[in-house]
Amino acid sequence: MQFGSDNQAGASQQVLETLLQANTGFTHGYGEDQWCAQATEALKTFFGCELDVFFVATGTAANSLALSCLVQPWETILCHHHSHILLDESTAPEFFSGGARLVPLTHQAGKLESRHLEHFFQNVSPEIPHTPSAKALSITQTNEAGQVYTVEEVATLSTLAHDHGLHVHMDGARFANAVASLACAPADISWKAGVDVLTLGATKCGALAAEAVIFFNRDLSENFIHRRKRSGHLISKGRLFGAQFIGWLKDDHWLDLAKHANSKAQQLADTLETFSNIQQVWPCQANELFLIMSEQLSESLQTAGAEFYQWPVTALPAGTTLKQNEVFVRLVTSFATTDEHITEFCDRIRNFVL
Amino acid sequence: MQFGSDNQAGASQQVLETLLQANTGFTHGYGEDQWCAQATEALKTFFGCELDVFFVATGTAANSLALSCLVQPWETILCHHHSHILLDESTAPEFFSGGARLVPLTHQAGKLESRHLEHFFQNVSPEIPHTPSAKALSITQTNEAGQVYTVEEVATLSTLAHDHGLHVHMDGARFANAVASLACAPADISWKAGVDVLTLGATKCGALAAEAVIFFNRDLSENFIHRRKRSGHLISKGRLFGAQFIGWLKDDHWLDLAKHANSKAQQLADTLETFSNIQQVWPCQANELFLIMSEQLSESLQTAGAEFYQWPVTALPAGTTLKQNEVFVRLVTSFATTDEHITEFCDRIRNFVL
Amino acid sequence: MQFGSDNQAGASQQVLETLLQANTGFTHGYGEDQWCAQATEALKTFFGCELDVFFVATGTAANSLALSCLVQPWETILCHHHSHILLDESTAPEFFSGGARLVPLTHQAGKLESRHLEHFFQNVSPEIPHTPSAKALSITQTNEAGQVYTVEEVATLSTLAHDHGLHVHMDGARFANAVASLACAPADISWKAGVDVLTLGATKCGALAAEAVIFFNRDLSENFIHRRKRSGHLISKGRLFGAQFIGWLKDDHWLDLAKHANSKAQQLADTLETFSNIQQVWPCQANELFLIMSEQLSESLQTAGAEFYQWPVTALPAGTTLKQNEVFVRLVTSFATTDEHITEFCDRIRNFVL
Amino acid sequence: MQFGSDNQAGASQQVLETLLQANTGFTHGYGEDQWCAQATEALKTFFGCELDVFFVATGTAANSLALSCLVQPWETILCHHHSHILLDESTAPEFFSGGARLVPLTHQAGKLESRHLEHFFQNVSPEIPHTPSAKALSITQTNEAGQVYTVEEVATLSTLAHDHGLHVHMDGARFANAVASLACAPADISWKAGVDVLTLGATKCGALAAEAVIFFNRDLSENFIHRRKRSGHLISKGRLFGAQFIGWLKDDHWLDLAKHANSKAQQLADTLETFSNIQQVWPCQANELFLIMSEQLSESLQTAGAEFYQWPVTALPAGTTLKQNEVFVRLVTSFATTDEHITEFCDRIRNFVL
Repeated sequence: MQFGSDNQAGASQQVLETLLQANTGFTHGYGEDQWCAQATEALKTFFGCELDVFFVATGTAANSLALSCLVQPWETILCHHHSHILLDESTAPEFFSGGARLVPLTHQAGKLESRHLEHFFQNVSPEIPHTPSAKALSITQTNEAGQVYTVEEVATLSTLAHDHGLHVHMDGARFANAVASLACAPADISWKAGVDVLTLGATKCGALAAEAVIFFNRDLSENFIHRRKRSGHLISKGRLFGAQFIGWLKDDHWLDLAKHANSKAQQLADTLETFSNIQQVWPCQANELFLIMSEQLSESLQTAGAEFYQWPVTALPAGTTLKQNEVFVRLVTSFATTDEHITEFCDRIRNFVL
Repeated sequence: MQFGSDNQAGASQQVLETLLQANTGFTHGYGEDQWCAQATEALKTFFGCELDVFFVATGTAANSLALSCLVQPWETILCHHHSHILLDESTAPEFFSGGARLVPLTHQAGKLESRHLEHFFQNVSPEIPHTPSAKALSITQTNEAGQVYTVEEVATLSTLAHDHGLHVHMDGARFANAVASLACAPADISWKAGVDVLTLGATKCGALAAEAVIFFNRDLSENFIHRRKRSGHLISKGRLFGAQFIGWLKDDHWLDLAKHANSKAQQLADTLETFSNIQQVWPCQANELFLIMSEQLSESLQTAGAEFYQWPVTALPAGTTLKQNEVFVRLVTSFATTDEHITEFCDRIRNFVL
Repeated sequence: MQFGSDNQAGASQQVLETLLQANTGFTHGYGEDQWCAQATEALKTFFGCELDVFFVATGTAANSLALSCLVQPWETILCHHHSHILLDESTAPEFFSGGARLVPLTHQAGKLESRHLEHFFQNVSPEIPHTPSAKALSITQTNEAGQVYTVEEVATLSTLAHDHGLHVHMDGARFANAVASLACAPADISWKAGVDVLTLGATKCGALAAEAVIFFNRDLSENFIHRRKRSGHLISKGRLFGAQFIGWLKDDHWLDLAKHANSKAQQLADTLETFSNIQQVWPCQANELFLIMSEQLSESLQTAGAEFYQWPVTALPAGTTLKQNEVFVRLVTSFATTDEHITEFCDRIRNFVL
Repeated sequence: MQFGSDNQAGASQQVLETLLQANTGFTHGYGEDQWCAQATEALKTFFGCELDVFFVATGTAANSLALSCLVQPWETILCHHHSHILLDESTAPEFFSGGARLVPLTHQAGKLESRHLEHFFQNVSPEIPHTPSAKALSITQTNEAGQVYTVEEVATLSTLAHDHGLHVHMDGARFANAVASLACAPADISWKAGVDVLTLGATKCGALAAEAVIFFNRDLSENFIHRRKRSGHLISKGRLFGAQFIGWLKDDHWLDLAKHANSKAQQLADTLETFSNIQQVWPCQANELFLIMSEQLSESLQTAGAEFYQWPVTALPAGTTLKQNEVFVRLVTSFATTDEHITEFCDRIRNFVL
């Protein structure tokens, strides 16, 4: 009953097998190998456009390196108050950017909306150089509340941002889950909707450690190789990344993995919907569920071996509060989640007696 | 005939197999898994002492993170003028340390000697806070000229450094090759010889991407988890590192791999010794050879498929200069180097006619 | 009618004269002179305690250097959403601290209250090292809304902060105005109320360029000399600072200057109180007034030569909004404000006809 | 007998008087005042060209801010091994540039020569992004050995630098002394000789605290206002700087001050030349003398009240070494040095008996 995070599973069979194949023989180091070249071509096909791509091992590195290409150290990055870059990556954005600042636009944990951006732009201080100026917008797709921005929502936010001279970053740690959820093309919610740079995460969706920083706006990638090297993210046996992405992209493997994770979450949501002792905070749109339940039930489940995390109550939407003895928890499914996980979990809730 | 770098081979069979085993099932992320725990225990056994260990994916990250724990941003790190941290890791040491400075002690490419340190200490400026003070010494084992510091040499340098209040870092990207060369215990040239923190590289010696930052002086590791996280080097599926180290350490696999690489280099050196058109710049002590040959010979070898790099002439020892049409090159052997590589390489030199 | 800022006046006569006296003759550079020594003693007397003091030229430098001594780059600083360090000092706090983060606790522009801190502490994430931890609280006295924290308010906030392991910083750019307002001793709202480090500004209150960073908690000052030097804030002819502070502190000159500024603000407030076309947003507690008036009135005043700034509407307290054609402005008085300034300003408002 | 440094004197009468005049009345803060505007115009006249100028309080800030506009954090700055930016400004260049690196070209303490640059360029490693690339050259005029680069020497170095894509910075802490020494126009050794950005120091030559960063290559100044603000170097009562520069530049006051200092040094040099117990290490070209004398003589002079500093023996030119009981010292004259200082100093040497 592992619902703690989609990074608690290993890698998918196909990803691993490609890695094994790539291990044979000698090749150039530092990404100058045929596997990285092939993965780059596969990503161009995936997105249907020209792009610059760079591979790194972690989402934090991918996000921070990407953002550091968008802003100067005296500029700011607009984001959601519950974004991963703000709450879960230490002060990595500041470190990589040389001290640029994240500016959260709203505390409410649904999606960023155009009105949040508009409100911000209406109140911008012109006091240069005293007040730092916004130069980037970062949105997360699938976001931290498990919600998926529609194509139109991404496009609206991007247009607003561009109109005010900001670049647009998308944290795509669960990009595949969003594409599976929307049944759209990867291009539709990325470059076609105005995203300048996307951090495409394969790790949470079946790879071992493989993130791609993808510049659709290629002017912005100019210094990436220097930033990656000096932050220690240029690995010597670069085929490690190339191979994983080849295996992940081949024959829409990524989509199968994402669909599986999403469908397991939906299956869980559908069953929990029928339980009176569980409240679902946001609709299940990808592979995450956010639940309110009693402390006793939560402890009982964990005692039985279920893994999931308590979630910060500050992330609850306006109007939703915890009653005494209630807890707010997050459940995540992955490509490796099985029916047995779900059945056992639901059975335990169904049969729970205080 | 791949002698370009020991990172041009993949991973050894045993390392890969352990990785495959570790891939199965769910486990906690961020290094809180049983594989990392087991690898940590194995490293304690390897060194025969208590220690703090942290895994990262690259040597640059390992070195820079380690150094950032030793100095304040207004202090300096003493090193060799040809050290990897100075010449081959961009400005990563500055980035991670917040702007501390590397101070190279000598241009001559042999080893750092106690007289270099003594000369430095004799001329230290007391002009605090104007002049930055030295707070760390970094030595490379096996070093950038393929030379191995003896146990006594390490101990002498460490004692001198400690006597002046400096911490001692060892860049052990080729630590295994040094141990194999000296036929000593890993402890002998690390903590027993005064090393405070060692970056132990497995990547160049048969792993895929696995470096361990090992604090023998555990007081210095206090902030490492923060530094690793905010630099994006805490990977989510941490078993990737744990598994590689388990496979690498098991049954002295690391030593077999290092011995193989060293013996192939020695085999090459022995044969080249007999050739009049090749000059060996330093004695072969581990898995690297530094040669002077004619440009024509060099080009002929590369045309035939041999891989090796030209090396900076500034690294030549005092008194050694290139004649016209001569080049200075480096050859590296690895766990994957075969007799065929060596035989073909030597045959082509033997049969080379201008 | 200069009400733009208290930095639009020059220096007071007494400050200047001390500077002239100090200019004579030779003395040691870099603050190792008798003037700085004497100013340091005067500050110990001023606060009635032992302390470490360092002089710099600007409030931004003073604040950022102080804060950089309180937090690690992966930690955070709690502050008010309208604090000067957040809104008016570019990304200086991030620059000096190596990337630590400011976390604003409330948007409402009155004072920070203990409930804001308590709410924060109740929702602290334990996810180390993912989520950055708070390590400092910064409060502004007099604050950005012209409000003065009482002795009890400072003590309550400090105690709460200390109880949670945070250090307390006070931005005292208008500290003298606060002391004059409260008619307390400088010690009462600084070290006796729990402040660890105070940036005491003389510039806004009659000096030319003189800020003192004062560590009551002297353990925290350990690295200040290095931080000051490497940020270029150690001036060579240090007597410039020593002399200004001597002149400023002598015979309670600072208090006379602050009282004058405060009384002029009060005089203005009292008159404006009687005008129906002016709304005072916060009570006048020191030397700043925050007014809502019609755009037409505001423009008419500026046309007549009055200087004042529009203030961000986001700083308005909850429940206060601007009607159409209204503006929100700030007026600041200084030691140099005269009755003529005030009379003319009030007359023009009194006689204003749309 | 104050020969410790030219920053041990106060400000000249004319500089102070201009400051007093500027103190009267209200004006805009942050350099938006008429005094700064007038100083800017005066500097354009001084150099006979268009330029961008920014005022700061210290030479370290001026140098580091200037350099931070020339290089990216992964690039390097070439300099002399005994340059002030390397040895006497802590790690300020690294701090301001976000971690760029200083690369000293020669240990010999005379001037940088074109052969040093040529040797560097011949051995540049093409290993991007591993090896950092040079992007700036910094030369000091008058330099740290009291030597003055001729117009031709500056032009030759600049041309070489530009030919290799480097920008040229001149540390002009003693620029006025160099101009006085060469009897040239300020333009001749700055922009006409290829200097892109000059840090023009008035402090050491009669101001209180006034340094100007002057961009002849105005494209490079783009982000200066942000860098100055976020490093706390934008002072609020900016007239402090404007006034000093106006007073310093008016009626060639700067030149009178510099000529005085230089002539006093020459007077000292001429007399010392006749003494057998004093060895002058470099010729006296501006306002600094470098002497070798016996420890006993040095101590006797200091006991008698003479101020001067021992200088690092590593700065001695090749071939010059200290005998036992000898010391290497530096003497600096200033606008305030009197004949009495010199006569007394020389008399004491003349009459010294062991």
